[in-house]
Amino acid sequence: VKLNCDIGESFGIWKMGRDEDVMPCIDLANIACGFHASDPSNISKSISLALENRVTIGAHISYLDLLGFGRRSIAHTYEEIRDLSIYQLGALDALCKLQKTEVSYVKPHGALYNDMMKDFDIFKALAKSISEYNQNIKLMILATKDTHKYKELANECGIELLLELFADRAYDSNGHLVSRKESGSVLNSKEILSRVKEIAKSGKIKTIENKFLELKADTLCIHGDNEESIELAKEIKSLL
Amino acid sequence: VKLNCDIGESFGIWKMGRDEDVMPCIDLANIACGFHASDPSNISKSISLALENRVTIGAHISYLDLLGFGRRSIAHTYEEIRDLSIYQLGALDALCKLQKTEVSYVKPHGALYNDMMKDFDIFKALAKSISEYNQNIKLMILATKDTHKYKELANECGIELLLELFADRAYDSNGHLVSRKESGSVLNSKEILSRVKEIAKSGKIKTIENKFLELKADTLCIHGDNEESIELAKEIKSLL
Amino acid sequence: VKLNCDIGESFGIWKMGRDEDVMPCIDLANIACGFHASDPSNISKSISLALENRVTIGAHISYLDLLGFGRRSIAHTYEEIRDLSIYQLGALDALCKLQKTEVSYVKPHGALYNDMMKDFDIFKALAKSISEYNQNIKLMILATKDTHKYKELANECGIELLLELFADRAYDSNGHLVSRKESGSVLNSKEILSRVKEIAKSGKIKTIENKFLELKADTLCIHGDNEESIELAKEIKSLL
Amino acid sequence: VKLNCDIGESFGIWKMGRDEDVMPCIDLANIACGFHASDPSNISKSISLALENRVTIGAHISYLDLLGFGRRSIAHTYEEIRDLSIYQLGALDALCKLQKTEVSYVKPHGALYNDMMKDFDIFKALAKSISEYNQNIKLMILATKDTHKYKELANECGIELLLELFADRAYDSNGHLVSRKESGSVLNSKEILSRVKEIAKSGKIKTIENKFLELKADTLCIHGDNEESIELAKEIKSLL
Repeated sequence: VKLNCDIGESFGIWKMGRDEDVMPCIDLANIACGFHASDPSNISKSISLALENRVTIGAHISYLDLLGFGRRSIAHTYEEIRDLSIYQLGALDALCKLQKTEVSYVKPHGALYNDMMKDFDIFKALAKSISEYNQNIKLMILATKDTHKYKELANECGIELLLELFADRAYDSNGHLVSRKESGSVLNSKEILSRVKEIAKSGKIKTIENKFLELKADTLCIHGDNEESIELAKEIKSLL
Repeated sequence: VKLNCDIGESFGIWKMGRDEDVMPCIDLANIACGFHASDPSNISKSISLALENRVTIGAHISYLDLLGFGRRSIAHTYEEIRDLSIYQLGALDALCKLQKTEVSYVKPHGALYNDMMKDFDIFKALAKSISEYNQNIKLMILATKDTHKYKELANECGIELLLELFADRAYDSNGHLVSRKESGSVLNSKEILSRVKEIAKSGKIKTIENKFLELKADTLCIHGDNEESIELAKEIKSLL
Repeated sequence: VKLNCDIGESFGIWKMGRDEDVMPCIDLANIACGFHASDPSNISKSISLALENRVTIGAHISYLDLLGFGRRSIAHTYEEIRDLSIYQLGALDALCKLQKTEVSYVKPHGALYNDMMKDFDIFKALAKSISEYNQNIKLMILATKDTHKYKELANECGIELLLELFADRAYDSNGHLVSRKESGSVLNSKEILSRVKEIAKSGKIKTIENKFLELKADTLCIHGDNEESIELAKEIKSLL
Repeated sequence: VKLNCDIGESFGIWKMGRDEDVMPCIDLANIACGFHASDPSNISKSISLALENRVTIGAHISYLDLLGFGRRSIAHTYEEIRDLSIYQLGALDALCKLQKTEVSYVKPHGALYNDMMKDFDIFKALAKSISEYNQNIKLMILATKDTHKYKELANECGIELLLELFADRAYDSNGHLVSRKESGSVLNSKEILSRVKEIAKSGKIKTIENKFLELKADTLCIHGDNEESIELAKEIKSLL
């Protein structure tokens, strides 16, 4: 199981995240592309940092919403989603090319990620347009109990998926994320480490109902925005 | 001499330019990349229109300044200019790839164009970064009396230049554009057609001092924003 | 019945609307405040134009969404709606003050207008914050069959409402706007003129089911974006 | 001598500055108005914090340039400067009104501040438009050796000036700020405290040539962005 983390979320002179500290712990860097965070120069710095740490680069694409950090859903046609996604992917990929590297996967961010998991046609628009851009680029989506239909479509498009689990979010027995509004929806450090141990041992996760659920995943999403999360990232890395 | 024109300068629901009408007259479409005009969906439409008319696509890159339409100089480091240019070029190129075409050249827009002609290091930053992205992509600059140093650097970078003349702007005997603030700096339709005839015949242009000047050019910049300019574009095309 | 029209919807160098032509026909100018259209300088020009034509000025406030022209709903807390509304209202009012005039009413634009009519708490947030800013400023909302609860709250806040009818939109017998997706939802010029005559005569409008409905309204919303709408505006004005 | 500090420079979820910690030390809060930093909701929070600490509120107005934090000069006409300034001032003043307070002064930020001190006509545009908006609002400018012409114009406009000294910047014997590019241009904590003591004692400051210069000032600009600056702010406050 590879570790992925949101990277490059500064904007202009505003700093966010402790990218230098978390980068040595992770395998996959979800680099913001300027629509919810970052800008061309911050992107270039994020690419350099990923290269120095031999971390694989992904395009963290988003709705255009700096003020809302891409967390607010904004209605778009599927064509618009294709266009804004490939715009961001191409921009990041070109800046990667200047440093002789490339984008390996796409992870939709925030509201676009949630909307993709709710509306299969958004997933379809994304998968199709990525495959038309470059079939070597993977698409990261939420690991759920049944990913059959996603895999089938990805297959048709000729691209691979990366299924991700969230290290710090509670799941129910149906394999859905428990809403952040519910109590117990966000795990503390101890719970996160237990979960990581379980994944390493059995590949299963404990649900909010205290049952064990098998959720096949390729990658685990962790954070790197403060001292505590950096310490946790180091421990998670040493466990895996 | 090929005709180039600024294309895709709408933004959101705001329309600008008569792209459908001017496209059949031109050879090179300078497509706005979202920093001074346009947005991902308008870019896709501009690419489609260029393809339908078999027009070569160029990236019309700019400082980030929608409100000022990229016409206001904004101080940047050379690294920032590299990053913002490749961001825009990559974004456009990726959207081209979805339609199985590609960007053939870069034309800096507005204040970035002027700054490039004033500060050789900006030209250098642009030439170098374009060549690192893709050596098949050309860079369009102003045709001046002596383009030796530009060509030398382009040569070192392994890219080609496109030298452009403005159809509607007065030149002085040194081959510089006469400032828009001077009277007679902008040519009327009749003068533009005379100039085009001279270029077609002798390759020379008449300066504001009524002398003839040889300015070697690969392309002539025309406009397509209103009825009059469309009529003019048709006449120019038929003359060349 | 006063005529209101969206005014000042240009942005930077992008022009929209035929403000000079429609202004002599209307009573109330809904001036964009920079969040879905316009910018400080276009706002000043719109205020001048309203003053020259002795047209009352309203703040056409919106979600922050230039690319989507404020037509896309974006989730906000009620506090955020208060803050973005008063920010825009204050900005416009200050620019009015420079020209010795003032804002007389607020009309939410696009998605914010629709959201206000769907979520009473948004209406409440708007009414309350406007009243705290200046109780002389009215709030324009959609005229519906039963406006009791809106009027009651406005009364509590000490502000007045302006109820508006759309000249060009079909209504059903419940007094709701027929969705734009339905056929017949948008009236043609002839139908619009019939409606205006009916309003002038009986104060009633014909619904899509061909029944007559009394919808008490203070103002009628018309358009001024093209030649046809300008002609229509003149006819409507002469009828009223 | 009153202490002023830049406040409310967060934007969306990006935090900047330690406003809660520095606010108890200062007299005047230069609150960002959304053009170089902040947004309507962050503005409201900044106003609340100023009120809690009984700190006078100023509008920290700027060119529109979030990415460059308002530090890059952008060419504007004087009318545009008037419009963007009053837009921001009005927006902040309206949000103040909701909390039953008001804007007491305007401080141009970053490049606009520098441009105002270089181009008297920009100062004039600002002074004139502020006076037309509200003659009770003061304008903060740089204290220089000779402020005669500024005071004369302010007088004509019927507004007052606030002359400010920078606590942390070296001055030359002509009363000009030493460019940040020169060595010794930015004072360390010890030097800053010496300067504050001198101001408190004699009203004079030591120049980079080790001479004493009398620069009449109403306010001293300090910072509050990190632990060190907060400690310094407390010491400065206790000295004055």
